[in-house]
Amino acid sequence: MLREDVTEAIRAAVFEELAAVGYARMSIEGIARRAGVGKTAVYRRWRSKLHLVLDIVSALAVQGLPAPDTGSLEGDLRLLYEVTSRALRHPVASQIIPDLQAEAARNADIAEALQKTLREGQDGVASKILAAAAERGELAPGLDTDLALDLISGPLYWRSVVVRGPKPPKGYLGSLARATAEGLKAL
Amino acid sequence: MLREDVTEAIRAAVFEELAAVGYARMSIEGIARRAGVGKTAVYRRWRSKLHLVLDIVSALAVQGLPAPDTGSLEGDLRLLYEVTSRALRHPVASQIIPDLQAEAARNADIAEALQKTLREGQDGVASKILAAAAERGELAPGLDTDLALDLISGPLYWRSVVVRGPKPPKGYLGSLARATAEGLKAL
Repeated sequence: MLREDVTEAIRAAVFEELAAVGYARMSIEGIARRAGVGKTAVYRRWRSKLHLVLDIVSALAVQGLPAPDTGSLEGDLRLLYEVTSRALRHPVASQIIPDLQAEAARNADIAEALQKTLREGQDGVASKILAAAAERGELAPGLDTDLALDLISGPLYWRSVVVRGPKPPKGYLGSLARATAEGLKAL
Repeated sequence: MLREDVTEAIRAAVFEELAAVGYARMSIEGIARRAGVGKTAVYRRWRSKLHLVLDIVSALAVQGLPAPDTGSLEGDLRLLYEVTSRALRHPVASQIIPDLQAEAARNADIAEALQKTLREGQDGVASKILAAAAERGELAPGLDTDLALDLISGPLYWRSVVVRGPKPPKGYLGSLARATAEGLKAL
């Protein structure tokens, strides 16, 4: 195999292993076996299981979330929710992020790395939406940004990953964007 | 040991094992060893590791969440958030629920049981708050209850369990209640 093909085979094997056994039970041996490569090929690219998974999660978080620019807070939130709703149905979000959260509860390194990934992905885009809305005068100056980010990111995550409800019905994302925009304006 | 003492020793051992190794790695053997009882004592009370953990989570979810009745939507949400914020800092929420979510992503039985527990606990109280607000005329009749529950439960969960931010600063819960009430009124 070419170097790049090996890297791709390892990435694909990680997704399959995560889906099958979860982060806690996953091993570098299992990944290497599934990818059809030696353990050394994995360790040459990533220092540990944690680094391997975080690298893959970061790459997906960043590539999946463009910053919308529709000219209104509600419109921007609507677009963000459409992208996020799709992303949360990807195995990375619905299986791997809960796995990493479970690990984060008892491992400070994982907690820090996961927090950084979430902040750079979802919260990074939401911050840009908030800044643009403040500049247009839609939001009060000196808004509590942390609270605003929780209001923006929490509800869809709760529905998709925590409660694991069905796919949002027609109209749901639009109503969510309207309610969230009104909530933010009341801050 | 008396029968009740054995049950209590097992419950305490489950919390310690969960905190130490997590749900995926936890075994009935490990629980029994930590509790100082035989495996049979555990299996006589609970059919499996899953039943044991869900039983404990359900008991805590129900006992931890009274239904507030302050006379206003914002006031009720404020009280709910104070109780929930404390509950989410308990090891059950911050460690065990993420563990169970990770399992739920690949086990339909766990997903269903966890969803039932969440609906009966957090969402049960939130539903009562919504019904009282609708009766007072604070909310539109025929509101999308699922969306409303996501708006109420998502933000604090995102902050406490997903991003694992610091304890909410003074004023945070009050502002969250105000913003959420305004968001719900816009539905």
